[in-house]
Amino acid sequence: MTHDCSFLDNLDLDGDISWSQSDRENHAGDFGTSKTDEVEPDAVVFAESTTDVSRVVAAANDRGVPVTPYAAGTGLEANATPIEGGISLDTTQMDSIVEIGPNDLQIEVEAGVIGDDVNEALERYGLFFPPLPSSGSISTIGGMIATDASGQQTVKYGEVADWVLELTVVLADGSVINVGSKAAKTSSGYNIKELLIGSEGTLGIITRATLQLAGRPEQIKGGRAVFPTLTDATEAISDAITAGVDVAKIELIDDQTAVLANDYSDTELPEKPMIFLEFHADHGIDEEIDFCRSIFNAHEMEHLTIASGAEMERLWQARKDITYAAESFDPDLGLGPPGDVTVPIGRYPEMIAAVKTVAEEYDLFVPCFGHAGDGNLHYLVLADYDDTEEAARALEAYAELIKRALDLDGTITGEHGIGVGKRKFMELEHGETAVELMRAIKQTIDPKGILNPGKIVPLTSGSDDETDAKLI
Amino acid sequence: MTHDCSFLDNLDLDGDISWSQSDRENHAGDFGTSKTDEVEPDAVVFAESTTDVSRVVAAANDRGVPVTPYAAGTGLEANATPIEGGISLDTTQMDSIVEIGPNDLQIEVEAGVIGDDVNEALERYGLFFPPLPSSGSISTIGGMIATDASGQQTVKYGEVADWVLELTVVLADGSVINVGSKAAKTSSGYNIKELLIGSEGTLGIITRATLQLAGRPEQIKGGRAVFPTLTDATEAISDAITAGVDVAKIELIDDQTAVLANDYSDTELPEKPMIFLEFHADHGIDEEIDFCRSIFNAHEMEHLTIASGAEMERLWQARKDITYAAESFDPDLGLGPPGDVTVPIGRYPEMIAAVKTVAEEYDLFVPCFGHAGDGNLHYLVLADYDDTEEAARALEAYAELIKRALDLDGTITGEHGIGVGKRKFMELEHGETAVELMRAIKQTIDPKGILNPGKIVPLTSGSDDETDAKLI
Repeated sequence: MTHDCSFLDNLDLDGDISWSQSDRENHAGDFGTSKTDEVEPDAVVFAESTTDVSRVVAAANDRGVPVTPYAAGTGLEANATPIEGGISLDTTQMDSIVEIGPNDLQIEVEAGVIGDDVNEALERYGLFFPPLPSSGSISTIGGMIATDASGQQTVKYGEVADWVLELTVVLADGSVINVGSKAAKTSSGYNIKELLIGSEGTLGIITRATLQLAGRPEQIKGGRAVFPTLTDATEAISDAITAGVDVAKIELIDDQTAVLANDYSDTELPEKPMIFLEFHADHGIDEEIDFCRSIFNAHEMEHLTIASGAEMERLWQARKDITYAAESFDPDLGLGPPGDVTVPIGRYPEMIAAVKTVAEEYDLFVPCFGHAGDGNLHYLVLADYDDTEEAARALEAYAELIKRALDLDGTITGEHGIGVGKRKFMELEHGETAVELMRAIKQTIDPKGILNPGKIVPLTSGSDDETDAKLI
Repeated sequence: MTHDCSFLDNLDLDGDISWSQSDRENHAGDFGTSKTDEVEPDAVVFAESTTDVSRVVAAANDRGVPVTPYAAGTGLEANATPIEGGISLDTTQMDSIVEIGPNDLQIEVEAGVIGDDVNEALERYGLFFPPLPSSGSISTIGGMIATDASGQQTVKYGEVADWVLELTVVLADGSVINVGSKAAKTSSGYNIKELLIGSEGTLGIITRATLQLAGRPEQIKGGRAVFPTLTDATEAISDAITAGVDVAKIELIDDQTAVLANDYSDTELPEKPMIFLEFHADHGIDEEIDFCRSIFNAHEMEHLTIASGAEMERLWQARKDITYAAESFDPDLGLGPPGDVTVPIGRYPEMIAAVKTVAEEYDLFVPCFGHAGDGNLHYLVLADYDDTEEAARALEAYAELIKRALDLDGTITGEHGIGVGKRKFMELEHGETAVELMRAIKQTIDPKGILNPGKIVPLTSGSDDETDAKLI
């Protein structure tokens, strides 16, 4: 679908407008969009300010031209792919740190600031923004907020959403509002801020944010624990969390993922389930580690290595390399869509067991790993996606695991959002009435459907299946 | 305004319908509604189930009859006063604990369960629901969620909203949806759960909730610190929070509130600013207290008494008695509407200073106290509200402090909600466009405006001033 975007040239913008093939190609998809599913926008605008965003959106709305916000493009569900063409609104030039308020434990940033840059700027104050996702070194604060992202430290510090105090947002008609408050809490009016968080640019475009901060911990230690079986490892995690172990990261990889890691890094890690740990404390960190160790020992833990600094980072390497390891494992095997189910922590052992059962039933290699402390599990169904039969079988296995997660009172996505990829599961999780309510809200806030159309709950429900068939 | 509610008799309800004068009087207002502002509903329904709520709301919607949910009636902004008559839907009979899931750190309850009853049920599991407001012994979980409540322990554990995993909600047409997820995190679809939290029953009626839980701390200690000046005390708090002192409660009362407390309990507390503290830890509590002490000492602290158990409770008595103390201080003075402003923690000293300045400027007695660690401040403008001139002056002082809070990047209400009382300040905080967006959402979700009409953002904006003039 192409749209006449020549009106852009008449807008008085601080930022650049690009019609170049390379810029359009670079904005045709994100990490979660395969080459064949990419859609080039008709134009790319590199916005420099809230005013730029407002002017572009207002003019596009007048003409019914789609505007899809684009940040770092690290989304995994085609969240930023302009599937109906139109304008890709790139926010990465809006990368200023507006103000640091150490006395208020706050930082105000433009939406395009990279996560790690926030923490670098805060270092001299002894502060940090705790809930960065694993992609924090490349993804933007605005993108994280729009996706309702979270990460390895969520088990201790919560999600990105929990640290967002207030936002500047451009609505579909170009009007600009502030939502939330710089106060640490508020019960003033409808919670529009939370409605916009995780709405993936479909209800408004985030241009600025004030974030809450925390003091950096005085003590950091971490390492790796090895378990004989996956059941032991998952039950150890579940027990540690319910016992209240104060852990800052607790990540699981299964034995199959350990195989990938050894293959990738030419290491000789035990090819067994492993738990990666990190502890943060101002005092008493060793007591907390001992508390954790005693629980793990009750679940047949074979080995625990704890360190700090560079040695700790080395122990974590296998966890950090997972995506690259999976990608490079076998050139004939694709990764398929990334699983991101999340279940209540007591059900985590059952969820992991389901992965193994399904892998066996469907005769596929399904390594899994994830933010275990939150009950969040990533799985990859490795298959030859060029083989029609195998691809169909792999996608069926992928969907079966989503259904199993829902049966365990879980959610279809813990931190990646819906985008295009998970739309087809929305009704399964939320029911028809709740999805209709979401659609009504979208219709009210963006009546012409110009903001990132086709994502989460498309305005025309009939189109879902067709588009999904194309895009997955 | 009266409405024909005789259709209720034809509904097949588990619960009772009451037309009695006493039940109607008992549902005519809440803690925040003065006698003259009470409005009796035409009927009271004591719902026993989600089905009851659904049937009543569906039938009322068909007929355009208002339905105002009523829980414990502890709201402070006339949140549950049926100002347009119709049905008061009492949820307090829905008081079952549905399920306790110690392995998932969750509890599922009906909306009418009292806060303290949740914690009593959890005692045997070593778990608790941390964010209860001060009214936790009388107010319901549903009421807390609908008000976006928080309390003394919010400084450590967050707000009620942060501990709500999922909800069952009856919409305006009687349809029933579940929102949120039992998983600890989700980024699946629009955040309808958060939109409903704090919507005071104007967008839907909460009938059931799954709450996240925490393990009870192994160590609890607390006490009272005395400071020579209010500036010293507020700066001590601000510094302690930004330094990252891990405190579970940190409450301030000013010297004037200390006068009230002595008068009420016939005690001889120093009539100086005091900070009340409570610490929770699994280990190392004394180190944390020492850390706090060192910061307080740098702000001229005169005295710190720390204890545990009953002795700690005794030290806290003055803080607990504040409302009663203020009410009984002088029979000629009314309390006026309760201030609930919240500002970023670094601005807290300025906010407290503003209270003193305004009290002087307006020549009134304005004791203040509050959840200082969150930057939350309650103030009461004591005045003879039967004296027209003095009442007008008092309300002006009250409003002036709200404006000062907004000037300090704060919010008009930290935890009490908007109800009727704070509607007139909504545009001042959020701006016209954001308030119009809230109104559009209300219109979409409750097109006939039957759910708790007249609250937060009335559908007919013109009526605000008139109603406010009557109600305040």
